[in-house]
Amino acid sequence: MNAAQPPEHRQGSEPGRHNLDPHLDRYAARTAGMTASEIRALFAVASRPEVVSLAGGMPNLAALPLDSLSGQMAELIAEDGLVALQYGSAHGVPTLREQICDVMAMEGITGHPDDVVVTVGSQMGLDMVTRLFCDPGDVVIAEGPSYVGALGSFAAYQAKVVHVAMDDDGLVPETLRAALAHAKSQGKRVKFLYTIPNFHNPAGVTLAVERRAEILEICRENDVLVVEDNPYGLLGFDGQTYPALRSMDPDNVVYLGSFSKTFASGLRVGWVLAPHAVREKLVLAAESATLCPPTLNQLVVSRYLATHDWKGQVKTFRENYRERRDAMLSALEQHLPAGCTWTRPDGGFYVWVTVPEGVDTKAMLARAVTARVAYASGTGFYADGFGSRQMRLSYCYPTPERIREGVRRLAGVLESEMDLMRTFGSGTTRAVSGPQFPGPDTA
Amino acid sequence: MNAAQPPEHRQGSEPGRHNLDPHLDRYAARTAGMTASEIRALFAVASRPEVVSLAGGMPNLAALPLDSLSGQMAELIAEDGLVALQYGSAHGVPTLREQICDVMAMEGITGHPDDVVVTVGSQMGLDMVTRLFCDPGDVVIAEGPSYVGALGSFAAYQAKVVHVAMDDDGLVPETLRAALAHAKSQGKRVKFLYTIPNFHNPAGVTLAVERRAEILEICRENDVLVVEDNPYGLLGFDGQTYPALRSMDPDNVVYLGSFSKTFASGLRVGWVLAPHAVREKLVLAAESATLCPPTLNQLVVSRYLATHDWKGQVKTFRENYRERRDAMLSALEQHLPAGCTWTRPDGGFYVWVTVPEGVDTKAMLARAVTARVAYASGTGFYADGFGSRQMRLSYCYPTPERIREGVRRLAGVLESEMDLMRTFGSGTTRAVSGPQFPGPDTA
Repeated sequence: MNAAQPPEHRQGSEPGRHNLDPHLDRYAARTAGMTASEIRALFAVASRPEVVSLAGGMPNLAALPLDSLSGQMAELIAEDGLVALQYGSAHGVPTLREQICDVMAMEGITGHPDDVVVTVGSQMGLDMVTRLFCDPGDVVIAEGPSYVGALGSFAAYQAKVVHVAMDDDGLVPETLRAALAHAKSQGKRVKFLYTIPNFHNPAGVTLAVERRAEILEICRENDVLVVEDNPYGLLGFDGQTYPALRSMDPDNVVYLGSFSKTFASGLRVGWVLAPHAVREKLVLAAESATLCPPTLNQLVVSRYLATHDWKGQVKTFRENYRERRDAMLSALEQHLPAGCTWTRPDGGFYVWVTVPEGVDTKAMLARAVTARVAYASGTGFYADGFGSRQMRLSYCYPTPERIREGVRRLAGVLESEMDLMRTFGSGTTRAVSGPQFPGPDTA
Repeated sequence: MNAAQPPEHRQGSEPGRHNLDPHLDRYAARTAGMTASEIRALFAVASRPEVVSLAGGMPNLAALPLDSLSGQMAELIAEDGLVALQYGSAHGVPTLREQICDVMAMEGITGHPDDVVVTVGSQMGLDMVTRLFCDPGDVVIAEGPSYVGALGSFAAYQAKVVHVAMDDDGLVPETLRAALAHAKSQGKRVKFLYTIPNFHNPAGVTLAVERRAEILEICRENDVLVVEDNPYGLLGFDGQTYPALRSMDPDNVVYLGSFSKTFASGLRVGWVLAPHAVREKLVLAAESATLCPPTLNQLVVSRYLATHDWKGQVKTFRENYRERRDAMLSALEQHLPAGCTWTRPDGGFYVWVTVPEGVDTKAMLARAVTARVAYASGTGFYADGFGSRQMRLSYCYPTPERIREGVRRLAGVLESEMDLMRTFGSGTTRAVSGPQFPGPDTA
């Protein structure tokens, strides 16, 4: 469930234009939290072919068997077109919901197809879960940094995000405990913990298995629901999987899954597995949001799962991503100036880099794009302005050669930035007293 | 943009079960407004083949050229699969947005592709517009009756719906004026008028052209936005079209369009055409809701528009629906007991029937299903409990023979109901002092 945040060409969106908006007084209060991500302004430039983009989260689809998919799509329409092109239920196609249960079983989850709700990507699942649970001012606890699309949904429902720190073993249980105690002492209502346990976006770390029960226990003790977002779980580079939080506490975990990383993101097929009573409400919420997910797309996924060696395909994806991860890590080792640190992911799409104090990744981004490399600056992954010493580098999409070239360019930009700092002091870039990696901002 | 509300088989959803929901105290306030429609409880029965369903809004797709669509789908994946299966922008595919402008031009709209946002069906457009404009307690004015899916979205954002009356020429301007004055006198904030000017769902009437400028003027005077929902505009049975409200007041109308009725509902491709500043916010809202609409579906529609005689196909749809409309109107004339009245649509999918006083269409529905005919009772189309003397009959999906048989069965059920009333008084069915057709409930 990850943000590709793909190129947008908005010729008309000059800053300041909103002053001319005749509808300005009409908007709902929640629109105040709707802001464009920093990278968006640079997309028109960053998406030029000469720029190496380490910014997006687009999966590498080149390995997909397009020929056989093409034939299958033709068959689907010829044989079952009147169903594929017709409305379906907001709940989702029953056969697909059964298959989804088989997919989840690979991570230890026992779920009933009735409790699966198919969504338009798991972004929609996230939006629906927030719709169900969050009144304005309610608190959502999330790792710091966290998935930018989740922060967008939380903002749309005016929930307040409190970040909790991670280390190389993922979410640190003590910081969760502290954040919950703090919220309680302030009379805040914490609705759920939003967590990405496996191959975290953007942090690239995985929640240690021995921490999982503890985190679930903390949430139970504090009467806080867990929302587990797991788009990358099958993309462990050694084929390893981890027990899903949902498998360890079915009644207190809402699980979000996606075919965007294991099959094809452009189909927008994700799902929610929820405790029974929550599932009933989810279907009603989904109905008011999109009436039903596209039937065609659900049948495409269902046929693909039934007729292709989809697990073999996931293995191919994994191998591609491992190769790219290796290319990125060795390039970082080789090129990045002293003082930079980064995570070493065992799966997924992302490396999280911390740069030396005084360098502001947000301010540096425009200069990086000029040097023909793009990344996602860290501030976008925090609801509270932290992250200016961090950046997310994606290795999922470019070739290993392009990744190496991109990191080389990025290292050059960082070197110049640090040279400037040494010459003129850190005032040339905004000094920020934010958290060290990965950010202990539990307040 | 219409509710098919298709069959759901929810074995586990007994009423009362919610008392056992351990998450009950966690839900957001807005979930109080999320309730299942009446027909849903009967779907398992109503969707049996022996039942003639006049309840749903599923388009009749049998006329679609499946063979050529099948070939086209295969080509699309073979030639352009890496784009079709990849993330796109939340704004939508540029070529499709251009084509959408050509479609809208058929109803007099001059729009710029930049100001079009592609949505997952126009239900999502409606949801996004409500998200942008409605704080809890804000008022939305809508025709009474109105589209059930719109009422669901308004409820999800805790907007209060005030209905205004229609007659055979659609929304009555005086009732709109009165409703606005009343809201003002009560200090309520009216955010927009939601209207379906053409071949109204569920009322089956069309807003007279001479009323359109007046309604736009009333809204302007009162500083109220207009949300124009037009899924059926090209389905006028004589090929007639009407000037879109958007074409007459581009700066104060947000327009919702859909390919669900003119091509295929299962693709879930709709759009919003919005004033420029609103469009920018819509894209951000859409990004937090689904990240992006499915690329595959957008490219399928785009190819179809570019390579098929899609206008010829719309003509075929129109002719099919006209034949069915004729079958329904003549069967109503022939079979329905005295005291029933109904609208005579010139396009679209629906006839709105008013039954004699004392008959409660909601209470009667279970008996109708037992008699193997289903309809949508009127109360679902009002936010305020009115409509119990009304029902919506859809002629879009069944064959003319089935429609005639369905109306014959329905007439039998109505006769029995009225017999009971004559024998035992109207107390046997709930007497309701609701509005006459189409409902002057402007309060």
